[in-house]
Amino acid sequence: MLARQQMIDTIRGVYENYGFVPLSTPAVEFLDVLSGSAGAEAQQSIFRVTNPEHEELGLRFDLTVPLARVIAQYSERELPRPFRRYQVAPVWRADKPDKGRYREFIQFDLDSVGVVSEIADTEIIAGMCDTLGALDVGGYLVRFSSRAVLNLLLAFAGISAEQGVDVFRVLDKLDKVGVEKVRRELMNGYVDESGDTIRGVGLTSEQVDRIEQFLAIKSESRREVLTSLRELFAHVENAPAQIDVIERISSNLYVLGYGDDRVSLDLSIARGLAYYTGPVFEAILTEAPQFGSVFGGGRYDDLVMRFLGQSIPAVGASIGVDRLLAALTQLGKIGKRKATARVLVARMDESLEQEYLAMTWELRRAGIPTELYLGTAKGVGKQLKYADQYDIPLALLYGGNEHAEGIVTVKDMVAGRERAKPVADRKEYLAQRAGQVTMPRAELVDGIRRMLAELE
Amino acid sequence: MLARQQMIDTIRGVYENYGFVPLSTPAVEFLDVLSGSAGAEAQQSIFRVTNPEHEELGLRFDLTVPLARVIAQYSERELPRPFRRYQVAPVWRADKPDKGRYREFIQFDLDSVGVVSEIADTEIIAGMCDTLGALDVGGYLVRFSSRAVLNLLLAFAGISAEQGVDVFRVLDKLDKVGVEKVRRELMNGYVDESGDTIRGVGLTSEQVDRIEQFLAIKSESRREVLTSLRELFAHVENAPAQIDVIERISSNLYVLGYGDDRVSLDLSIARGLAYYTGPVFEAILTEAPQFGSVFGGGRYDDLVMRFLGQSIPAVGASIGVDRLLAALTQLGKIGKRKATARVLVARMDESLEQEYLAMTWELRRAGIPTELYLGTAKGVGKQLKYADQYDIPLALLYGGNEHAEGIVTVKDMVAGRERAKPVADRKEYLAQRAGQVTMPRAELVDGIRRMLAELE
Repeated sequence: MLARQQMIDTIRGVYENYGFVPLSTPAVEFLDVLSGSAGAEAQQSIFRVTNPEHEELGLRFDLTVPLARVIAQYSERELPRPFRRYQVAPVWRADKPDKGRYREFIQFDLDSVGVVSEIADTEIIAGMCDTLGALDVGGYLVRFSSRAVLNLLLAFAGISAEQGVDVFRVLDKLDKVGVEKVRRELMNGYVDESGDTIRGVGLTSEQVDRIEQFLAIKSESRREVLTSLRELFAHVENAPAQIDVIERISSNLYVLGYGDDRVSLDLSIARGLAYYTGPVFEAILTEAPQFGSVFGGGRYDDLVMRFLGQSIPAVGASIGVDRLLAALTQLGKIGKRKATARVLVARMDESLEQEYLAMTWELRRAGIPTELYLGTAKGVGKQLKYADQYDIPLALLYGGNEHAEGIVTVKDMVAGRERAKPVADRKEYLAQRAGQVTMPRAELVDGIRRMLAELE
Repeated sequence: MLARQQMIDTIRGVYENYGFVPLSTPAVEFLDVLSGSAGAEAQQSIFRVTNPEHEELGLRFDLTVPLARVIAQYSERELPRPFRRYQVAPVWRADKPDKGRYREFIQFDLDSVGVVSEIADTEIIAGMCDTLGALDVGGYLVRFSSRAVLNLLLAFAGISAEQGVDVFRVLDKLDKVGVEKVRRELMNGYVDESGDTIRGVGLTSEQVDRIEQFLAIKSESRREVLTSLRELFAHVENAPAQIDVIERISSNLYVLGYGDDRVSLDLSIARGLAYYTGPVFEAILTEAPQFGSVFGGGRYDDLVMRFLGQSIPAVGASIGVDRLLAALTQLGKIGKRKATARVLVARMDESLEQEYLAMTWELRRAGIPTELYLGTAKGVGKQLKYADQYDIPLALLYGGNEHAEGIVTVKDMVAGRERAKPVADRKEYLAQRAGQVTMPRAELVDGIRRMLAELE
């Protein structure tokens, strides 16, 4: 929770800096709102909810459908456009639970609604970069392409719009099954290892050649990809205008300092969802590519249509918070802190309770998160074990001796754990060896602050 | 949302400083977990949920029951005690919706589990004070008493434990119906204005006199209340030990600087919930007492018993975030910010788009939340109206003239709204009158920062 909260706070910081505003919607929506937008698979995964009025209700399965409902519900006078919102909230899917796949999980969505300009798309991509940078994920790459460019490919290869849907579905498997199988599935199909028949889309060899020419356009330089694309589609109608759109996105990104090392134009990106209509983007962690896309989105100009009967252009992206957290944890990029407290004040002597209270509040009022041990253990050993279990880095020990001498003993739990407990030289032990230092009672706050600074 | 989020962040800050750790639990719990802990009324208010396995499930109606379930589920080895957690999350109750009474609302709970020492109770009270202070609510008063002291009252007045439950229920109405009606209900009952019969508890006149002697103990000084209480209960068995407990709480609060002006010992506090076993507390806003208790809690040593068959001492409190927000909004203590952005960059001239982008990112990278206008309006008037609708305080205007002169014009939306638009002296207008200032393009960030500082 601490790591997740830290992640969410960081992401919120980026988007509030971008001027996105938070939106909260109820967990429960009318079932027809939810199921009308869901594919067959998603429909089955909706948790049904019963209220006293016996209306048909369900728990939201994403944050985009509630957004579209809100946009349809509030007029432009009530909710001026563009409406640029972020929402971080749990969603529920009654899928089969699996590793990293929960029935309740957190999504972080951001969307700009009522935006035509491709500057909105540029901003989403830049925001993805800034978010991943702020989260300190190490290497990342935002790959983008465009549904409009894929439609040019259909024209270029002489593929109908109906066949196109199947073509994109097959191309989406490229990473998983490889070029050869994709080629065969695009043509006449094949029988796989387990004996299952994979039906073909029915393209000709020439059509598949043209698709392969398109996919062969690869470069680390967005400028080079654009040049090759213009050459390939030189005779395709509308191609210059569509390519201009992604060129402007690319060029604006260069202006803002998002170079080829962070954003690539990757024509193999299609994104699964049917509702995208323009640019699509996804981010991968270059140090943990096995986690796949941790942050993805695109332009969906027609989604609100279903509710409003009116097209409202929109573009957005979504972070799978729990998947990204799993990746960052595996990469060691995010600490698994168990405690908020930095100091545990042990209670060693009942007659000194008011002193323990006073020290605890002194530290808290100095902004140092501090816990006063409130459990039932009397012995200092058990109290130190408690600090250890919660990874509280410092323990404050103040017994009769310290009281008499006007000092406090502070135990560095990390150092104490790493070194064997010495028995020979008590003085040295107290001084440093087991991570214990003493300081005058009056210098408590400054002393603790210094020790915490050293631990960072 | 912005105001609520700011509130929640402030409260979180206080409790993380106290060393409480965040807990998250699923929205959906097994129905028997929920309904076993709910009273009859609460049971009816549970939203039922259906999963593919057709198990009996429901949405949580509070955060205490999920905490008790977690404590029962994880052993002390997995979740060392004391476990001091906070949780801020929505809860659902299928009640009749009303003003300020929603079916989904946010609760902020904090609890210490596995704590015997009354220092834990002291800490909850101190935390309530620090929270209300940090939220800058103006005047507040935390009132506390103890179920144990109320039990002494039963002994003092010769009331049985069975009758006691009814007595506390009637006393809880004191604020609402007044002394005379409470007196009559405690004895033989009465017929109210609408002709309904209010059944009496059946106490004797002498018993009610003794209750009134107890309730007559009132003072702004906790010390005085304790002295009077000791006198009144001088001959009641166990009284000294029980009064010692609240005296230690009071005395520790004095040591920590929580004086009589912030925490009062108020013997009329009973708290409705049946599961409290020791100290109980609630906070009111002295400037808005009509909102009642905005933050309340108590010690409940037996609640976990139901799950674990073993008593685990615990103490906690809960803030009704939405009710407190309503109170703070009415008191004008919390701003209704509509935007996160502090600056709107208007798009006035297509040929300058890359300049707008560059300025937007310059400001963002300097930590100034900035929005680039992404809507469809071309005219600057409509773009300024948009800034006005979202209460964005500054608008950055940069057209052909500014570009030629190497300056930017910044419009102070608040000043611009307050003053009539002047027409006579264009120079002065540009300089100050309508809240417009110009500054060299190169000094944009510093200039904006200065203007925002003046607005605070």
